[in-house]
Amino acid sequence: MPDTPLLDIVNEPRDLRKLRPDQLRQFADELRAETIDAVSVTGGHLGAGLGVVELTVALHYLFNTPDDRIVWDVGHQVYPHKILTGRRDRIRTLRQGDGLSGFTKRAESEYDPFGAAHASTSISAALGFSVGRDLQGGKNKVVAVIGDGAMTGGMAFEGLNNAGAMDNKLIVILNDNDMSIAPPVGALSAYLSRLISSKSYRSLRDIGLHLSERFPRTVKKSAQRAESYVRGMLTGGTLFEELGCFYVGPIDGHNLDHLVPVLRNVRDDEADGPVLVHVITQKGKGYAPAESSADNYHGVGKFDVATGEFAGSGSNLPSYTRVFADSLIDQARRDDRIVAITAAMPSGTGIDRFGQVFPDRTFDVGLAEQHAVTFAAGLAAEGMKPFAAIYSTFLQRAFDQIVHDVAIQELPVRFALDRAGYVGADGQTHCGAFDIAYMGCLPGMVLMAAADEGELVRMVATAAAIDDRPSAFRYPRGSGVGAPLPEHPEALEIGKGRIVQEGTQVALLSYGARLQDCLEAASTLETHNLSTTVADARFAKPLDEQLVTDLAANHQILVTIEEGSIGGFATQVMHVLAREGIFDAGLVFRPIVMPDAFLDQDTPQRQVQSAGLDAASIVTTVLLALGREESLKIARQG
Amino acid sequence: MPDTPLLDIVNEPRDLRKLRPDQLRQFADELRAETIDAVSVTGGHLGAGLGVVELTVALHYLFNTPDDRIVWDVGHQVYPHKILTGRRDRIRTLRQGDGLSGFTKRAESEYDPFGAAHASTSISAALGFSVGRDLQGGKNKVVAVIGDGAMTGGMAFEGLNNAGAMDNKLIVILNDNDMSIAPPVGALSAYLSRLISSKSYRSLRDIGLHLSERFPRTVKKSAQRAESYVRGMLTGGTLFEELGCFYVGPIDGHNLDHLVPVLRNVRDDEADGPVLVHVITQKGKGYAPAESSADNYHGVGKFDVATGEFAGSGSNLPSYTRVFADSLIDQARRDDRIVAITAAMPSGTGIDRFGQVFPDRTFDVGLAEQHAVTFAAGLAAEGMKPFAAIYSTFLQRAFDQIVHDVAIQELPVRFALDRAGYVGADGQTHCGAFDIAYMGCLPGMVLMAAADEGELVRMVATAAAIDDRPSAFRYPRGSGVGAPLPEHPEALEIGKGRIVQEGTQVALLSYGARLQDCLEAASTLETHNLSTTVADARFAKPLDEQLVTDLAANHQILVTIEEGSIGGFATQVMHVLAREGIFDAGLVFRPIVMPDAFLDQDTPQRQVQSAGLDAASIVTTVLLALGREESLKIARQG
Repeated sequence: MPDTPLLDIVNEPRDLRKLRPDQLRQFADELRAETIDAVSVTGGHLGAGLGVVELTVALHYLFNTPDDRIVWDVGHQVYPHKILTGRRDRIRTLRQGDGLSGFTKRAESEYDPFGAAHASTSISAALGFSVGRDLQGGKNKVVAVIGDGAMTGGMAFEGLNNAGAMDNKLIVILNDNDMSIAPPVGALSAYLSRLISSKSYRSLRDIGLHLSERFPRTVKKSAQRAESYVRGMLTGGTLFEELGCFYVGPIDGHNLDHLVPVLRNVRDDEADGPVLVHVITQKGKGYAPAESSADNYHGVGKFDVATGEFAGSGSNLPSYTRVFADSLIDQARRDDRIVAITAAMPSGTGIDRFGQVFPDRTFDVGLAEQHAVTFAAGLAAEGMKPFAAIYSTFLQRAFDQIVHDVAIQELPVRFALDRAGYVGADGQTHCGAFDIAYMGCLPGMVLMAAADEGELVRMVATAAAIDDRPSAFRYPRGSGVGAPLPEHPEALEIGKGRIVQEGTQVALLSYGARLQDCLEAASTLETHNLSTTVADARFAKPLDEQLVTDLAANHQILVTIEEGSIGGFATQVMHVLAREGIFDAGLVFRPIVMPDAFLDQDTPQRQVQSAGLDAASIVTTVLLALGREESLKIARQG
Repeated sequence: MPDTPLLDIVNEPRDLRKLRPDQLRQFADELRAETIDAVSVTGGHLGAGLGVVELTVALHYLFNTPDDRIVWDVGHQVYPHKILTGRRDRIRTLRQGDGLSGFTKRAESEYDPFGAAHASTSISAALGFSVGRDLQGGKNKVVAVIGDGAMTGGMAFEGLNNAGAMDNKLIVILNDNDMSIAPPVGALSAYLSRLISSKSYRSLRDIGLHLSERFPRTVKKSAQRAESYVRGMLTGGTLFEELGCFYVGPIDGHNLDHLVPVLRNVRDDEADGPVLVHVITQKGKGYAPAESSADNYHGVGKFDVATGEFAGSGSNLPSYTRVFADSLIDQARRDDRIVAITAAMPSGTGIDRFGQVFPDRTFDVGLAEQHAVTFAAGLAAEGMKPFAAIYSTFLQRAFDQIVHDVAIQELPVRFALDRAGYVGADGQTHCGAFDIAYMGCLPGMVLMAAADEGELVRMVATAAAIDDRPSAFRYPRGSGVGAPLPEHPEALEIGKGRIVQEGTQVALLSYGARLQDCLEAASTLETHNLSTTVADARFAKPLDEQLVTDLAANHQILVTIEEGSIGGFATQVMHVLAREGIFDAGLVFRPIVMPDAFLDQDTPQRQVQSAGLDAASIVTTVLLALGREESLKIARQG
């Protein structure tokens, strides 16, 4: 544990505010050391947090949190913020079951006014806080902190554009660690920023604008334009000025002597409307292994602080992500119409591997899922075979584009839905729960789920072959189960499932990766003299109706299992059972889906257990449904 | 019918290209007259189309359509385009059953490369066409035409930002009829635009940029910046330059002598990357009643061309929209925490009425549903009571924001879902089909559907009262059924339905406005000696489980009816029936939902009929399920 004398006397921001300005540097260093040590124990997002240590300190030092609202975009940068806001004692429970969330969370602290885990939401939320405050006559400040990546998301633009058109006071801090927008920062820029954010400059400007209001519209416009352009040419903030923000920056986000005076000026500024403060930071700042790593330790497992070395993942099996990438590369070698699209997640989706082989056929469109999907639809309309590789949770951002630009037009866009189902430490917000429901309701979709990594290979081949309509295949986070990978995968027959194991009494119909639990449950059921069929539906849509009706006809009970919310695979099955009148004469049917709750972070195994999707829960469901309470007791004792 | 000698000899764009340039003015006038006459017969979107008559003519005159791709944003501006591309003979079937769609539609014409009905998609799609062309070695041009309203949608920004970072040739035409961005246009601006779009200017610029590449990065950046800023100060296009577009404009979009030379220059320009041409137009241009109307005849019914007078709507009953607005005003008088949010649909949602009474509590955030929802979440987090009034179909844009910013955080945002169910002439794209499914899968939501306008009043009161979690209520397009409006509406008991009519054999459980059909079906069923209970579920979530189990226990058959897709209300009901073991012993259960298809435009009544949601279909479902084929024959003959 690092030596942290100042941090030890700061439990909440009010303690921080008692420090002298000249103590802040040391305090920030201690906060950084504590952050590194905590993440070395828990794993998690490190690079982003290290980039905002000084910003976190400056904000809580200058603003009267929690009454002043700090809305952090993509909460994974908030570990230093959590340490500083009364949660240091639990910081080594980050992302663990019953521990702290890895993101901001309203239920966790009054210092988290808004939860954020998907990007680009902070400006919209902060504008809501700002308008709400004004309507209620409040005087507190509202600050949004948004990264340059998140700024490429369309809703950030929507928020900024709307904020620029309103006169509510709002401070937006652009945390720019890419330098893609900014010219070099330095003393001159810091001086200019302080000048521009100062009262005297603002007053002078206001006088100028006020005067120009007496001129005709064109002259007035020109005067305003000229003023902002001159500043823009010096500082680079014209884009934001055009959107109606007063731009200040860029300033060095690791230099507290630059940060504190500028933020103080901005805080005390009385002018109306949004102010954007452009802060340049470095991801992974202050920890050499992170600074020198390609992804700046964006998301990491446990590691050794002294060396930066990671503990192993514990699995020798290939990840589903990697199997997907290799399969897609394999398909693309044979078909040069195949292209791959990612929305700022090249390594998470495996599209980086694809890009190494086919750089000209790989498109990282930025943090912009809506654009990604419609761009893919345009590619498909022009005759290409696009694979849009987007996590189940992130694809929620593009639901309307799936409906309009893909499904209604029957364009053959392929969706590779990684992280389907529970995702462990990332918790509620990244859970891939809803894709079967929100895509299952769309006419014409082909929906598949991979029961194991071998099936995933087959489904990539199947999606490549489907060229007359949209398709999607889902697969879980993490490692495969050791299934053999077909070397020459053939496309599956569309809408046909498979019997994995034949029985006579119980039918378990699985959709996706819980098939392994079904097989285990079947073994247990056999010990209770219940002969069990296990089937893998492969397709939720079009559904294998023959398989469903056969299973229903030939067993005492039919159970469906999927790692997804209500409204998905079970819904498709029940509609067939109802329509065909199979319920009329009686059918013991039990659909097992995720419970109607957002589950907190935990290990994936424990999430699956507490959701009732594991083998033991399946056995319990079957025995209860069949009125075998006696067997259930035995099963529980065993 | 107008006199149209030139239009009469132009069936397709290739005929247009045979005209002399000096004939284009007359041709455009004829095209405008034909558009006005056609819409006077069919009703539809008029203002937008009239604004782009000259642009439509210029584009098809200069570009080699359909090989060159014109991607129109929000297809409702494309009536002139349809007349000009071989569909004039069917133009008076616009928006009618079996007629032309009111939007671009791939299935309808090769001149419609991409269907568009929700805004802001064109740049993303066009970039897909452009990249696909380049990958296949094509040489055709790609043009996106996007309005200034659509430009406020986040995905337009995502697309522009991505296009600006790539070197694919792409032409974006900003059709600006608001003048909110532009300085006045005139001869000087037209001259500048022609100059800037000309080869000599581009060459000069390229030389300059090429030279500057030999300088260090900062100098190069400054040189580029200075060049674009000087142009920006003259023309106003800096925002787009900052996003990586070469900006040309603004030019008068009704002056063919300005339009044609500039667009020709842009067409023939060989430089890489996106070009944005800023065109100023007037909605409703060239038809006096439209020009002088407040909304420029945005969407209209049938009218008299000579006078501009509209035929009546045919209903004396208040629209659901109006009932909603008046109810919300009523609630807001009693509770000053109530605020209303619309995303650029103030009149469509009735929020304009609310805004007349409470201007300070009304927020039109622009064409930006994502921002609207998260802004509402921020307001709720600050203690306000936001009502986000967004059509069912448009709320699809904000699905992820509903999940993250509202549902996970249990923030009391109220969603007023207008246009739920079939919408008639707007067809597939605006059908409110999926909201019950995409919101029903989310934990913690309260979902309601209004059976009539009296129920809507109660549900507004209920939503106002629910302050600890999110809620939504859906209601159909069009007029109410004449139900009495409660003067002092009380909040409904959450999760409780109601029995509307008691019977003993058949149970019809309705969710929403098809209750009227259930009552009619019940009458018919009585004539077949089937005593029928009709119930109104009111809530899909939380579901009235007691009502469901009681109906199942006490009737021979249970039928659910909803005007929504699979995955919605019926899913909630079936999960209860399965979980409670009610299917085990046999239950004749039939869920009636929308068919798994995107229905084309038609009258709402015919859509409901062909979807099998009308009274006759309900009767048929019941009789078939009960094996009463004989009765069915009689019913059909009756």
